[in-house]
Amino acid sequence: MAAVPMVELWRGGILESMHAGHAVICDDKGGIVEAWGDPEAVIFPRSSCKMVQALPLIESGAAAAYGLSDAQLALACASHNGAAIHTGPVVRWLADLGLGEADLRCGPQMPDDRDARKGLICSDTKPCQLHNNCSGKHTGFLTLNKHLNGGPEYIDPDHPVQRAVRAVFEEVTDLPSPGFGIDGCSAPNFATTMHGLARAMAFFATAHGRDGLRDRAATRLVGAMMAYPELVAGEGRACTNLMRAMGGRVAVKTGAEAVFTAILPDLKRGIAVKIMDGADRASEAVITALLIRVGALDRNHPVVERYLTGPVLNRRGIAAAEMRLAPGFTS
Amino acid sequence: MAAVPMVELWRGGILESMHAGHAVICDDKGGIVEAWGDPEAVIFPRSSCKMVQALPLIESGAAAAYGLSDAQLALACASHNGAAIHTGPVVRWLADLGLGEADLRCGPQMPDDRDARKGLICSDTKPCQLHNNCSGKHTGFLTLNKHLNGGPEYIDPDHPVQRAVRAVFEEVTDLPSPGFGIDGCSAPNFATTMHGLARAMAFFATAHGRDGLRDRAATRLVGAMMAYPELVAGEGRACTNLMRAMGGRVAVKTGAEAVFTAILPDLKRGIAVKIMDGADRASEAVITALLIRVGALDRNHPVVERYLTGPVLNRRGIAAAEMRLAPGFTS
Repeated sequence: MAAVPMVELWRGGILESMHAGHAVICDDKGGIVEAWGDPEAVIFPRSSCKMVQALPLIESGAAAAYGLSDAQLALACASHNGAAIHTGPVVRWLADLGLGEADLRCGPQMPDDRDARKGLICSDTKPCQLHNNCSGKHTGFLTLNKHLNGGPEYIDPDHPVQRAVRAVFEEVTDLPSPGFGIDGCSAPNFATTMHGLARAMAFFATAHGRDGLRDRAATRLVGAMMAYPELVAGEGRACTNLMRAMGGRVAVKTGAEAVFTAILPDLKRGIAVKIMDGADRASEAVITALLIRVGALDRNHPVVERYLTGPVLNRRGIAAAEMRLAPGFTS
Repeated sequence: MAAVPMVELWRGGILESMHAGHAVICDDKGGIVEAWGDPEAVIFPRSSCKMVQALPLIESGAAAAYGLSDAQLALACASHNGAAIHTGPVVRWLADLGLGEADLRCGPQMPDDRDARKGLICSDTKPCQLHNNCSGKHTGFLTLNKHLNGGPEYIDPDHPVQRAVRAVFEEVTDLPSPGFGIDGCSAPNFATTMHGLARAMAFFATAHGRDGLRDRAATRLVGAMMAYPELVAGEGRACTNLMRAMGGRVAVKTGAEAVFTAILPDLKRGIAVKIMDGADRASEAVITALLIRVGALDRNHPVVERYLTGPVLNRRGIAAAEMRLAPGFTS
């Protein structure tokens, strides 16, 4: 089954643009509660599965050996803005490992954070790898790598760090990965199905009810994400705003090319969304709609207007267009 | 008929994202040479029809009365970067009219141009309406308005300026407009069909072979766009790069929400493209493919690699993904 229309952009009473995608909601057993589009569609989770990539960091004993805090674990799961609240702790974390920026393999990225970007631009300073939205994840990889005494190229698919990530990824998605792609941060990103990704999120959502090594690791990562929404993304970002709007009771994570995941411990549900054209405005609208649908987000919270129901303002602040859920989608 | 798949994004040998759309190529009579998707689909041309919105400026005699140069006419058709080469001439043009920035109704916009943006950010200066990518079009509206002695709210749909634009728009598209929306710059943007927009571009492409008042106005606007590609968009932009790559023999124009038009005077063809999800990366790839298909663009020109065939590089410059035309599209 193909992707289905999910979000429409209307202007002057005429449909201007449209986004189609897939979405799956899984229950506590990993079964499908509801699905739109094709649950068997193969996708790249991209950054939406960073909490999966962080599991070996805890399971291996590396997190305990280096005394990682929940804030550091939140950064390991983050696609951050490159603000001082993100880059500062990453620098100190690297120093604790006896490492530095040059040991990262994520590449440089101009930060989204306004102040950080202004500071770089106005001082004619190039951004570095610390500003990369994945620098926390990569410092987590380096922590695991130090614990494993691996070589410096920790992003190679055959490196012990990535072999550990792949093994865990296939176990929590409960599927062999059909392959991998190189992510924007140069780490391998393992493909899975929509159902596999939603099932992995359900695993995280139900871990608190179990007591295995991996369950405790998953519970700690979800708790860290919910406790530090500003570290997982940053001010003004959808992940941070949505987690705050739900009072720290739900963990959500975006990924490049319009992927969005949600972990709902109270409801014991996992959600995965992929918009086929890669538009974040649509994945943000759809995850907002689904969080309302499952009862995790109050439809009257201001964040709903921002990502779903509010007007699209033009450069004079005039309501020029509006987003609407496509007919038949979560009506 | 629905939009058809046109552009795919592949990563690690797996299809990651996809863009669907409509495209129409019209001949010198306005007939359809080739079409993909639905030629009768109603769309908003957005900024891709700025040359149409500029026709009344010349036809009315306003351009002659104020001695507008071809560079000014290129700016009237522009979605510019807000660079000094754009804002400088707009300021002088407004002064020639005895007007200023406050007379514009396009709203402020942070310029895309790197130097202009840096200058504003590092001096804590807010962008103004001159930086708006539509400030040239609006100064053209103000020139026509001065000639017509109209009121200051020249963007109202019932204002003589916009009534003139609508009349010309419906004549060159050869269709009554089913309605309008408010554009990002607050001017009304009139809807038409894909065929109507491509037909309008074919009108511009063939105007040089006719000698009516409107034909001469269209010929001058196309000549101005082709003569000043850097004014129509700016350094690094697709319109500018594609027009330069075709040696100033073709005029192309992008519009918001992934619209792209092309005017080919030598081939007497007009092209219209709309990607339904609004992704510029896809509309740029498709117009590039169609310009090659009709024989206007050399498939070996470096610009083709940039917009269509080149790898998608990640933050370390590694080829992480690639764009491909969807099977069956312009193969």
